[in-house]
Amino acid sequence: MTRLLLINPNTTQAMTDQMHAVASALAGPDVTVTSRTATRGVPYIASRAEAQLAGAEALDMLAKDVLARDGSRHDAAIIAAFGDPGIVAARELFDMPIVGMAEASIMSAALLGERFSIVTFSPVMARWYVDCVRQTGLEARFTGVRCPDHMPDHLDNVAVTLRAELIALCERAVCEDGADVVILGGAPLAGLAQQIGSDAPGILVDPISAAVVQALGLARMQPSYARRAARPARKGSTGLGPDLATIIAGSTDATG
Amino acid sequence: MTRLLLINPNTTQAMTDQMHAVASALAGPDVTVTSRTATRGVPYIASRAEAQLAGAEALDMLAKDVLARDGSRHDAAIIAAFGDPGIVAARELFDMPIVGMAEASIMSAALLGERFSIVTFSPVMARWYVDCVRQTGLEARFTGVRCPDHMPDHLDNVAVTLRAELIALCERAVCEDGADVVILGGAPLAGLAQQIGSDAPGILVDPISAAVVQALGLARMQPSYARRAARPARKGSTGLGPDLATIIAGSTDATG
Amino acid sequence: MTRLLLINPNTTQAMTDQMHAVASALAGPDVTVTSRTATRGVPYIASRAEAQLAGAEALDMLAKDVLARDGSRHDAAIIAAFGDPGIVAARELFDMPIVGMAEASIMSAALLGERFSIVTFSPVMARWYVDCVRQTGLEARFTGVRCPDHMPDHLDNVAVTLRAELIALCERAVCEDGADVVILGGAPLAGLAQQIGSDAPGILVDPISAAVVQALGLARMQPSYARRAARPARKGSTGLGPDLATIIAGSTDATG
Amino acid sequence: MTRLLLINPNTTQAMTDQMHAVASALAGPDVTVTSRTATRGVPYIASRAEAQLAGAEALDMLAKDVLARDGSRHDAAIIAAFGDPGIVAARELFDMPIVGMAEASIMSAALLGERFSIVTFSPVMARWYVDCVRQTGLEARFTGVRCPDHMPDHLDNVAVTLRAELIALCERAVCEDGADVVILGGAPLAGLAQQIGSDAPGILVDPISAAVVQALGLARMQPSYARRAARPARKGSTGLGPDLATIIAGSTDATG
Amino acid sequence: MTRLLLINPNTTQAMTDQMHAVASALAGPDVTVTSRTATRGVPYIASRAEAQLAGAEALDMLAKDVLARDGSRHDAAIIAAFGDPGIVAARELFDMPIVGMAEASIMSAALLGERFSIVTFSPVMARWYVDCVRQTGLEARFTGVRCPDHMPDHLDNVAVTLRAELIALCERAVCEDGADVVILGGAPLAGLAQQIGSDAPGILVDPISAAVVQALGLARMQPSYARRAARPARKGSTGLGPDLATIIAGSTDATG
Amino acid sequence: MTRLLLINPNTTQAMTDQMHAVASALAGPDVTVTSRTATRGVPYIASRAEAQLAGAEALDMLAKDVLARDGSRHDAAIIAAFGDPGIVAARELFDMPIVGMAEASIMSAALLGERFSIVTFSPVMARWYVDCVRQTGLEARFTGVRCPDHMPDHLDNVAVTLRAELIALCERAVCEDGADVVILGGAPLAGLAQQIGSDAPGILVDPISAAVVQALGLARMQPSYARRAARPARKGSTGLGPDLATIIAGSTDATG
Repeated sequence: MTRLLLINPNTTQAMTDQMHAVASALAGPDVTVTSRTATRGVPYIASRAEAQLAGAEALDMLAKDVLARDGSRHDAAIIAAFGDPGIVAARELFDMPIVGMAEASIMSAALLGERFSIVTFSPVMARWYVDCVRQTGLEARFTGVRCPDHMPDHLDNVAVTLRAELIALCERAVCEDGADVVILGGAPLAGLAQQIGSDAPGILVDPISAAVVQALGLARMQPSYARRAARPARKGSTGLGPDLATIIAGSTDATG
Repeated sequence: MTRLLLINPNTTQAMTDQMHAVASALAGPDVTVTSRTATRGVPYIASRAEAQLAGAEALDMLAKDVLARDGSRHDAAIIAAFGDPGIVAARELFDMPIVGMAEASIMSAALLGERFSIVTFSPVMARWYVDCVRQTGLEARFTGVRCPDHMPDHLDNVAVTLRAELIALCERAVCEDGADVVILGGAPLAGLAQQIGSDAPGILVDPISAAVVQALGLARMQPSYARRAARPARKGSTGLGPDLATIIAGSTDATG
Repeated sequence: MTRLLLINPNTTQAMTDQMHAVASALAGPDVTVTSRTATRGVPYIASRAEAQLAGAEALDMLAKDVLARDGSRHDAAIIAAFGDPGIVAARELFDMPIVGMAEASIMSAALLGERFSIVTFSPVMARWYVDCVRQTGLEARFTGVRCPDHMPDHLDNVAVTLRAELIALCERAVCEDGADVVILGGAPLAGLAQQIGSDAPGILVDPISAAVVQALGLARMQPSYARRAARPARKGSTGLGPDLATIIAGSTDATG
Repeated sequence: MTRLLLINPNTTQAMTDQMHAVASALAGPDVTVTSRTATRGVPYIASRAEAQLAGAEALDMLAKDVLARDGSRHDAAIIAAFGDPGIVAARELFDMPIVGMAEASIMSAALLGERFSIVTFSPVMARWYVDCVRQTGLEARFTGVRCPDHMPDHLDNVAVTLRAELIALCERAVCEDGADVVILGGAPLAGLAQQIGSDAPGILVDPISAAVVQALGLARMQPSYARRAARPARKGSTGLGPDLATIIAGSTDATG
Repeated sequence: MTRLLLINPNTTQAMTDQMHAVASALAGPDVTVTSRTATRGVPYIASRAEAQLAGAEALDMLAKDVLARDGSRHDAAIIAAFGDPGIVAARELFDMPIVGMAEASIMSAALLGERFSIVTFSPVMARWYVDCVRQTGLEARFTGVRCPDHMPDHLDNVAVTLRAELIALCERAVCEDGADVVILGGAPLAGLAQQIGSDAPGILVDPISAAVVQALGLARMQPSYARRAARPARKGSTGLGPDLATIIAGSTDATG
Repeated sequence: MTRLLLINPNTTQAMTDQMHAVASALAGPDVTVTSRTATRGVPYIASRAEAQLAGAEALDMLAKDVLARDGSRHDAAIIAAFGDPGIVAARELFDMPIVGMAEASIMSAALLGERFSIVTFSPVMARWYVDCVRQTGLEARFTGVRCPDHMPDHLDNVAVTLRAELIALCERAVCEDGADVVILGGAPLAGLAQQIGSDAPGILVDPISAAVVQALGLARMQPSYARRAARPARKGSTGLGPDLATIIAGSTDATG
């Protein structure tokens, strides 16, 4: 039995539920998926400032689960927000594979074709998505973000209401920009790739699915953390959550 | 049941057997691994010239399996040689996930840490390994190749005879070069990551294992190839193998 | 009278005092420097994980000062830790020039010569310093970090005890690496540039001095924030400090 | 009293006067600004060929002022033409901070936001402006030049006659290209940033103002040139201006 | 008498004849041009898959000529297909200058101006042309491909039927994209540069002409291959053409 | 008869004579080589400052020859100093192929192998050589400069006195750095490539030979300058040489 931890650094439980459903279905019966929703932060992270705070919260959430006394240690974790808040920091502190939705979908896209695009439902996060790609180092294979000109009025059902427009954006990403692969970015589009795969040009990637297969794949490789580098020196701290303070103080091991 | 095709573009059957064993063990009981060894080419690909020829052979091998009439179509394929000969070409022709050992291990490494190194047993292929990293676009996260100064006399058992030296090279990759993750490159080192993981610094990646988990993970995502871009125009050809000629003529679909 | 806010995201008051002294002396009589020390976090930020937390704290500290009711609004702010935790996030939220010590010294160095090095007193943060340079985009002009092989036993007085070694490192940075300018990085070296300037090769840059002159210079340019881009959408939040929550809710303007 | 030297390598005195006025006003009462206009060259440098000649003239002008016998040595100098002709050469020969208008505004922009644009009044120099950004190394943070499609008929009053169009170009730079900061490039736009700052989107940067604050800021840091690298070997010359020949012969120190 | 070998890895003899005519005319009376047409492969290489196969065929063709017993050894060779299939591999195996049409025209363009474009008659190969430029490393000086929106119905006479459109594309490449030099890519445009040079904006480059002058120029430099690096280790092979097998076995020298 | 103009922007006639001899021998009987030596400047350009001045002088020298009334117009020109002072400016003003020694040898090297090194006789210009490579855009294929640790006492005969050391540096460039091609940079090494080609590892390139074959090759292609872009607007000037002023005023065409 593989245990996968899904951390949603947004405070919206419904978003967690939706991602949990996709993750559980894809992971199959021999995987336990545990999902957590942030209790501090904003409903939907959409800026660097919000990601700065959400990344700190993600570390706290991971520390709690890692130090839980009930044997629920995990084999891998997902930081389930595009933009991957706290991912670099989390890898320093915890001894298990941890993947972000952006980087997992970008790396998967890079294995499915030479060039990839990101299509999303709103212009608001377009720039941050570009920064996410830069962060991975793969900008030379990125053809850019395609999105509607304006934020839609309602996000409730964009996968349905914007279906035709999103397919048209895939068309432009593939035919004008030269993308082979299209990542459908943004939580409201979770699962859409399966639904429009036969209509939209390009090979489509669903970020939460990519995060699940990457997290499980890395766990299956059983990478050794015994003598890994880059773990910060142990030190005291002030005012942090007790589990995170314990991890930083180094008084317990941080194996997932 | 997932069907995974492993193509070894080297002509050495023993190498195929070794990789097949690692792949089968990692893939688990619900995966069928079919392995093929090249019948044209060289025993161990170690130059760009040899890779040019091996890539052409790999396309021929893939065409044969894809067009086989006995229902043995595959869900994903691995080109099982570091350097990934023919990988870009193969993705154009065949409608299924196809991964190379180099890119699969590089992308996996990039999900396990910020910077990665390649450690290998001989200086001969060091430069080509560098080119492999460049090909992926991730050179900014690459700390370089670490290898012995000289080619060992015998390759039969380098994972044993060079064990101490390889661990020392990992040490240098991590401590001097700043790598978080170390890829153990080269067929003779297949499986070594598991054996030295608790002794060597850094998080170790075994390329054939990485290729297996990436190929299976991408297959699990069930990417749609129905309307993908970049498939070459149908055309006639002269002097190619009949299956490959059929694929290029486009008279059958190329779904894996 | 120009009002400069100096935020130390480390929890060490003595470090704040030392930087405050350098900043006040350099800023001159027509500038008021207000310095704050973090009350949550670690004594000396030395990892990405600690910077993730420190950046969140820095936002909280900035929000408090910006919303203070006593007319003490500032013309510019410094995030006074090399690595600039929270700088990108802070620029999104607050309408005033905010500079980090790393980027201020790097940009100043790039105006004093073509290539620059960072010399520091310990190998611990060498890699993060490299990441800081990458973050600015100026890695092509960076010749690397030069530091002692080992962490010194005591940091109390490294500017004195390591004086000869630091000059020797400057020598290597200039003569072997080709640096024109040398940044003396790390809080314990604050002010050292002035003391060894006539003995060490290269043009030396003191980070806190660079941060002060850049922050004051940008304030003097009086950049308009009236219609700037990239301010995040107003939104509610849970569990944040009240001032930061107010800023994020957008119920007050965030002019410094 | 700080002494700032402003070298205009164009032969147009009126341009010098305009920049001198902005510089003096910004520099404040404790700074003396000395301005010089080139006596050889072209009225308005607008090509690489003209910049090649202007850079040689700038070296000659700097040599004259540096060797002046009347105690008028300077603390810093500005090469007051966008494109910064001769800047790299000048830094080799003279021991004081010397900044160019392009690089000073680019570095300042990079401290005010993540991405910057250049807006100007004519397409003629658009390409050279791009080259200026590349020269600094910051092209990854540059969103490009925005300019009218055609050269305006008269340059006399473009800041007034093109006001609406320039604001519209800022709009496109910010909203379409994703710039946070906009540099208003070109001598005829000197001072415009202050005038349109509340109407134009983005944080505006005035190049001559940026050059002044950077030159004064670097001077305030009092960088040591005592043992700097990269000063050319002393040598004889033929046919150069006497002061420049003296500098190159190295028979006097070149302290500003 | 200089002997130049022209290898056409396409199977179309008429294409060889056309290029042979241009090459012979340009090369002049003291050069013998020997041209060969591939007997395996496709009529017109237009994909990576086809280039993978064509590169292998090119190695075979080169091996045959190099090992010919009749004293017809060559001073230099051209792989006469844009995209340069097999060029890197060929340089490993053969001890003479070998140039590809893409790289020869790109390097020539880079010596004629700062930025270059590629104009061609069809959108089909636009992306591969971009990859060719990346392969050389000169993408920073490349302004992109300009081509018609659709593949023309007939290629027989595109240099005539598309003349006006191609000139218009040059106009856009120069005026909108900022190219100084325009490469007219694609075999059907061979020789067009001379015909439209006085009408089209930009400095035009004809790829086959560039390949000829580069191959002859490199031959004239008489580079020594006596102790060159990067020749692969000698080894046995299976199923290759006899001449290529001989070369790979290293039983004869590979001097052109 | 092809007419080649060789401009030496150094003031040393003996250097011109040496390069003229190599150029004439290589160019053959159907080429007239006219060589000019600078009358203003320094004996041996070795810094950016000197190159700034030398580039201006080179423009003046080219203007004189181009405007000469005796029918001696040239088909191509060489700026015969490594570092190529004035090359970008010269291409703007004059309508003929003009090549620099550095870029010609770098482009030739890039056609002979994948990676190239520069070996020279002194550390003084090592950094500028690196800058030359960057200027071409080919730094990703550059393995760096190899040179002795110290400037030799006499330059008279370095090709003889340093022969063994230079061969050893080629060895390191090839074996340690991975270079395929080695450029022997610096005027005192002109012609050395031919002499040590059979002893030194790597494929050697002689810069003046490369400049000659590139200039002649480009001339043979007869590129059209009729409608080229990027020629500066016509304008008046003050204090320039009369021929250069004429060219800048645009009152005559600038065909070579």
